[in-house]
Amino acid sequence: MDIEAQVKDALREYDRNLVEYRRLRETCETEIPSHLRQWGVLDFRVEARVKKRGSFEQKVRRDPDRPVLDMVGLRIMTFFRSDIPQVEKMTRRLFDVKEDSYIDKGDLLSDASFGYRSVQFVAHTRGDGVGGDFEAGIPVEVQIRTMLEHVWAEVEHDFRYKPQHEAPSADINRRFALTAALLEQADLNLDDIREELEGR
Amino acid sequence: MDIEAQVKDALREYDRNLVEYRRLRETCETEIPSHLRQWGVLDFRVEARVKKRGSFEQKVRRDPDRPVLDMVGLRIMTFFRSDIPQVEKMTRRLFDVKEDSYIDKGDLLSDASFGYRSVQFVAHTRGDGVGGDFEAGIPVEVQIRTMLEHVWAEVEHDFRYKPQHEAPSADINRRFALTAALLEQADLNLDDIREELEGR
Amino acid sequence: MDIEAQVKDALREYDRNLVEYRRLRETCETEIPSHLRQWGVLDFRVEARVKKRGSFEQKVRRDPDRPVLDMVGLRIMTFFRSDIPQVEKMTRRLFDVKEDSYIDKGDLLSDASFGYRSVQFVAHTRGDGVGGDFEAGIPVEVQIRTMLEHVWAEVEHDFRYKPQHEAPSADINRRFALTAALLEQADLNLDDIREELEGR
Amino acid sequence: MDIEAQVKDALREYDRNLVEYRRLRETCETEIPSHLRQWGVLDFRVEARVKKRGSFEQKVRRDPDRPVLDMVGLRIMTFFRSDIPQVEKMTRRLFDVKEDSYIDKGDLLSDASFGYRSVQFVAHTRGDGVGGDFEAGIPVEVQIRTMLEHVWAEVEHDFRYKPQHEAPSADINRRFALTAALLEQADLNLDDIREELEGR
Repeated sequence: MDIEAQVKDALREYDRNLVEYRRLRETCETEIPSHLRQWGVLDFRVEARVKKRGSFEQKVRRDPDRPVLDMVGLRIMTFFRSDIPQVEKMTRRLFDVKEDSYIDKGDLLSDASFGYRSVQFVAHTRGDGVGGDFEAGIPVEVQIRTMLEHVWAEVEHDFRYKPQHEAPSADINRRFALTAALLEQADLNLDDIREELEGR
Repeated sequence: MDIEAQVKDALREYDRNLVEYRRLRETCETEIPSHLRQWGVLDFRVEARVKKRGSFEQKVRRDPDRPVLDMVGLRIMTFFRSDIPQVEKMTRRLFDVKEDSYIDKGDLLSDASFGYRSVQFVAHTRGDGVGGDFEAGIPVEVQIRTMLEHVWAEVEHDFRYKPQHEAPSADINRRFALTAALLEQADLNLDDIREELEGR
Repeated sequence: MDIEAQVKDALREYDRNLVEYRRLRETCETEIPSHLRQWGVLDFRVEARVKKRGSFEQKVRRDPDRPVLDMVGLRIMTFFRSDIPQVEKMTRRLFDVKEDSYIDKGDLLSDASFGYRSVQFVAHTRGDGVGGDFEAGIPVEVQIRTMLEHVWAEVEHDFRYKPQHEAPSADINRRFALTAALLEQADLNLDDIREELEGR
Repeated sequence: MDIEAQVKDALREYDRNLVEYRRLRETCETEIPSHLRQWGVLDFRVEARVKKRGSFEQKVRRDPDRPVLDMVGLRIMTFFRSDIPQVEKMTRRLFDVKEDSYIDKGDLLSDASFGYRSVQFVAHTRGDGVGGDFEAGIPVEVQIRTMLEHVWAEVEHDFRYKPQHEAPSADINRRFALTAALLEQADLNLDDIREELEGR
């Protein structure tokens, strides 16, 4: 099959499923918060989005044989870093996690390096779990990170990929790394404060 | 008039206006982002909320003669601290700012102190500006702060006002202040990075 | 007695005692380190100095009736903040501390402020203690601080009192405070690291 | 030649030269400060030491064929990081630097990593330069670093090489790296402050 045909097929599929994707996005935004609270996570922000048609088409064109798995994106941001394992555990109950897609970006940093941190994986609806009335197997791209990690990631991503920018210099890279270190220290402090105040 | 009567009147007013408040909240969330982009502010988050009925009633009971001005709350968070003056300028164009309500909490900190930072004021719809079809004079409580200031403010507020907690110790206060300093340094770094990359 | 006569007397006294002051300075630099080790403090730097004649004369002229108590200055800097109480205890054994001169500059900072930190007091030789062969009652001005506190104090003092400089701006004061906060966080981290590695 | 004979020869050489090494150490401590001031570096600390006999013997035993080049060690610590290039330039005038020994440890860190920073090299007396009356070719091991880099290096070295300690865990390594980042940020701030106050 030639690329144009593949793209056309993919877009037809996109259009057919769009309503369902939107409903899944809304379900995530509505249901995840109450699940989080049940799991004892009280300070968070949940965002979900459906991939834009144009951005979907671009991705298909880049590699038409590779399935697009981030039609629906779910991002859970915590105010406390120590809540992340619990958020991950909850997500594993609500969805089927595709283990080979799982990556903890923070693990890619050496002991002495600072930068992008985010837990990311593809999860499939289970038929029960979130949105019990969705058919099983719809992929959702999940990101779990702290709020401070998120701010850093957004700004850094912005500068790194804006087309009008040159590649950041070594000096800029270093300042980004310094800033990541400051935010990681802040995240540690917030956990220490909570542990002292709540004993957890 | 006795308090119960005042509260009853206030709640009747609340119920009558609720739809309008909700419409204003949605209008803020929809229109403010495009205004921000027109004013050159590209990295932000806008949140608006309508005060909950119970929380409104509590506030009326505490002081029935004082008008409640935060029925609609609008929070604009920037990824760059240096965007805050521009956001403020924009807000002054879109609303009538009640100058006597204006406070820059950061100005309350001495040169050597670190803590809560947020620009806050009450603004009134103008009849034009945001939501041209709202009548003039509906109050909106506006908060403008950076994302990092926001994370700190949320966590600190949480711990300070949770009823089950004792007053934070001097040691906890110090760690909060240290963390505020780290985040302020991070905000300065992000501005430095942007200035170097974009020359602004 | 007129000022000139007082100054002349004071300088004569200075000249007569200079050899003794120098011997006390050297004794401090030699003996304090081994005392510190006996008290379990292993990472430190000890500096002692005798006040310069010109600087002594200036001080007398400013207030001829006030005794000069910092003819000999002793500064003990620790690599770990948690060693400071032990250093202070040791100093109290080796000298007679004049309690009304005692000040912990860090205590002057509010919970949320960052800046100059140093424990300072006047101590008198005891006849035994350091330099058992000195007569009792020679004053020594003692400063105890961490190395990081010291670096900050030196730079800040330099800029604040250099005659060619104007008073630092609010912005400069804030950056000094930010830097003090970073160094305080670093001191806390080093203590945490030691506690984890050595269990103390 | 067998090892014992080599060690014996080396120790005989050590003993013969010890007085000269000590004189060179003292000359460094006395003369380097005034050279630094002439080169415009005003805030610094200079330390020199002669290698202890036992530590010398150990080093010879480990590799008897390798000449020991750190009999005299000279460490110059600056309060401002931006003074380091000037200190290095000065050192190159006063000594003959062995270029193949030169290493800037900070260059070994990737853009995103934080840790040990120090400029290090072997320099030889020139016959003129520092201590004009020393014969040419006596090696001096030179270290140039900021005060804050020094505090970190001392503490980290201590923990890493104390025999009673196990290898630091990943968590400890990370806290050391975080602390290095905080101190690097502090060094940048002090340079910014100086630049703003002095325009250099």
